[in-house]
Amino acid sequence: MSQKTKAVINNHRVVIIGGGFGGLYAARKLGNASVDVTLIDRRNFHLFQPLLYQVATGGLSPGDIASPLRSVLNRYKNIRVVEAQVDRIDAREKLVFAGQETYGYDSLIIATGSTHHYFGNDAWASIAPGIKTIEDALEIRRRIFETYEKAEHEIDPTLRQTLLTFVMIGGGPTGVELAGAIAELAYATLKEDFRRFDPRETKIILIEAGNRILAAYPEKLAQKARKSLEKLGVIIKTQTLVTDIHENKLIVKSPGGTEEIHAGNMIWAAGVKASQLAAIFAAETKAETDKSGRIKVMPDLSIEKHPDIFVVGDLAYFEQDGNPLPGVAPVAMQQGKYVAKVIKQRLKGKSPRSFHYLNKGNLAVIGRNSAIADLGFLELSGFPAWLIWVFVHIAYLIEYDNRVLVLIQWAWNYFTKKRGARLITGKQEIPFSPFEKSKDTAG
Amino acid sequence: MSQKTKAVINNHRVVIIGGGFGGLYAARKLGNASVDVTLIDRRNFHLFQPLLYQVATGGLSPGDIASPLRSVLNRYKNIRVVEAQVDRIDAREKLVFAGQETYGYDSLIIATGSTHHYFGNDAWASIAPGIKTIEDALEIRRRIFETYEKAEHEIDPTLRQTLLTFVMIGGGPTGVELAGAIAELAYATLKEDFRRFDPRETKIILIEAGNRILAAYPEKLAQKARKSLEKLGVIIKTQTLVTDIHENKLIVKSPGGTEEIHAGNMIWAAGVKASQLAAIFAAETKAETDKSGRIKVMPDLSIEKHPDIFVVGDLAYFEQDGNPLPGVAPVAMQQGKYVAKVIKQRLKGKSPRSFHYLNKGNLAVIGRNSAIADLGFLELSGFPAWLIWVFVHIAYLIEYDNRVLVLIQWAWNYFTKKRGARLITGKQEIPFSPFEKSKDTAG
Repeated sequence: MSQKTKAVINNHRVVIIGGGFGGLYAARKLGNASVDVTLIDRRNFHLFQPLLYQVATGGLSPGDIASPLRSVLNRYKNIRVVEAQVDRIDAREKLVFAGQETYGYDSLIIATGSTHHYFGNDAWASIAPGIKTIEDALEIRRRIFETYEKAEHEIDPTLRQTLLTFVMIGGGPTGVELAGAIAELAYATLKEDFRRFDPRETKIILIEAGNRILAAYPEKLAQKARKSLEKLGVIIKTQTLVTDIHENKLIVKSPGGTEEIHAGNMIWAAGVKASQLAAIFAAETKAETDKSGRIKVMPDLSIEKHPDIFVVGDLAYFEQDGNPLPGVAPVAMQQGKYVAKVIKQRLKGKSPRSFHYLNKGNLAVIGRNSAIADLGFLELSGFPAWLIWVFVHIAYLIEYDNRVLVLIQWAWNYFTKKRGARLITGKQEIPFSPFEKSKDTAG
Repeated sequence: MSQKTKAVINNHRVVIIGGGFGGLYAARKLGNASVDVTLIDRRNFHLFQPLLYQVATGGLSPGDIASPLRSVLNRYKNIRVVEAQVDRIDAREKLVFAGQETYGYDSLIIATGSTHHYFGNDAWASIAPGIKTIEDALEIRRRIFETYEKAEHEIDPTLRQTLLTFVMIGGGPTGVELAGAIAELAYATLKEDFRRFDPRETKIILIEAGNRILAAYPEKLAQKARKSLEKLGVIIKTQTLVTDIHENKLIVKSPGGTEEIHAGNMIWAAGVKASQLAAIFAAETKAETDKSGRIKVMPDLSIEKHPDIFVVGDLAYFEQDGNPLPGVAPVAMQQGKYVAKVIKQRLKGKSPRSFHYLNKGNLAVIGRNSAIADLGFLELSGFPAWLIWVFVHIAYLIEYDNRVLVLIQWAWNYFTKKRGARLITGKQEIPFSPFEKSKDTAG
């Protein structure tokens, strides 16, 4: 057959790996365009990760911040959603392998995100879990509320103090938001719930290796956040490095020396690295990666020498004004939308401008009525920042029902200081003898 | 010391085992009375079981139908909530043993409820799970939605039909409500969500050993329910007994003979028996039990020869007008409140009247706009019954926030036919080769 007799009967095929902010926003932007889109994800839902800490602290239910991908995308007839685990890609033959199935692509968008980074100490993960998935959040929720049930049974005040000590490792937005939420829980929500001890015995420690918390924010705002956290009762230790983690004990090093902290609960918010598949993709495309495994991308977010493969979101290493872009939701959203535009423009024979991230602002919430907002032209803290935080988060929830549900629960939590979703589910531990061994040796 | 010099410095101590409808309603009725109440439960929340099927079918989140017991009861300063597993009781010394702790009582209320009854075939439980706990509901939810993900990958139409066949075993309210909800899910909610098959291929079979479904309801209403279910697309098989269950296959016997049904999903709604502790309680108190292990109680709901031990809810066997009361929430609520009254009256030296269940009506929901209601003086079906069902269920939810959340989600589900909480969480199965073995032998 000569070139001329070939009729175009198939659309340009786009495969998207990952249904997080990057993948989902790319897919929506390609919705109803003249391309065939296949979005592959291991999970059947899109997760609004910025609110996971609310699930972990009993303020929201998983269903409130997760939307079935099929439901979000079913109005676009050119998009197919596939629940599958991608094993590898073949960049030469342009194939994606997922289990028993193989998907051919003309353009590939890789958006598999990031996971916890324990910097070589993976054994710490079981003691100090991170918070990236619904299961992570439910496990942390279980630990938090089980802690208070155990404390109600613990008569030794020293052991109870250990039990009631929460350590957040990492002073970025996740650590700050968790510390604030646990402080509100302990000092307000649970105040009346126990009979044998006072939940206000709770000690919340936020540990940060750097000089200050919220390093990505202007110094003045970070200072305000620090003051707000301290007002809530959170103890902040900066220039403090975790050197080892054991059950109920962590070792930290600061300019003042080495210290042991006895704590029944630790949460890891200190770092992320590229998702597991990144190494496979990088090897196949011979792409350069940074030290946390992120894939370096070209100005149009494609991989060098692979103009048909794009990387967006947390997995992409992209420098702007001399600094790599942070792994936050707005970057992933803008990158996803940009790549969709690139694909559509290329099909029209145009070549698009380089990607440029427009930072609309940084937000971090500390607690009720308290947040910080860096809008570039304006820095806010306290109640106005908190209000902006509330409405930005609700506006970006994918589905209308979730927006209404979250709004109502926040209003409820706000006025009553209650948190209705503080259920202990899953692996059930009956709260006796949290320190059975210590007790036995003591007795 | 003579009898006279004894001052009453301790209140009458009431221990309640179980925070379901029976235990919780007893506790609330004893709230702020001159008694010391200890409510012991394995879980930290009260569960609104009548709506569990909504969690299993993605209509509601667990947090919507569960309320932390501490939060519900914290306004009563005389009530202490203990999360613990009760091991046994000592009826002579009046003690309850739970782990390392022992609780003395003057009055004991046993309200530990019921569990699934497989009539000696406990091996069926893993294939055809029942629905009694949050974890049960989430497991069924996972199975239902994983089924559709698998179907999207299954190209063999026979295997896909097996996959998409759901069998509800038991034609009581739970089986009927599940069948109706799955029918709406398959034939409305998921209609547009898949690209390789039509979810309307789903086959839903309701199996009942007796002559008709909803045996506890008037015949005319059960007939209407049957018609509504059939209109939704549910296949109803009465006089059909399950004789064996295998992975993807069940064997049933009916007057027409023995039949094999190939089905990827089975849910057990055929029977309940007394909770595991019942046998221990019965042995200790030498109480009589019925064939499903329920404890026979006196007219005041106490155990014979143990006037200080009461049994309420599903665990109590109580005959009224010649029939045992059914294991439903209204019976448990009324019994819990009644026993609280008995305890208070006895403390005043009064002896209370016998318990009498006031049946305010029976409700069962079939689907959107469709339910049946037997109010005694009036029998309703269709939309009016459905409306009553909606408002009765919302009114009995324990906490205001839950009421608002459920109301909004139902309104949302009603108008959009969406079900937002259809997440696959927990044990993650990647949906390839559901019938790998069959495929291999076929290939």
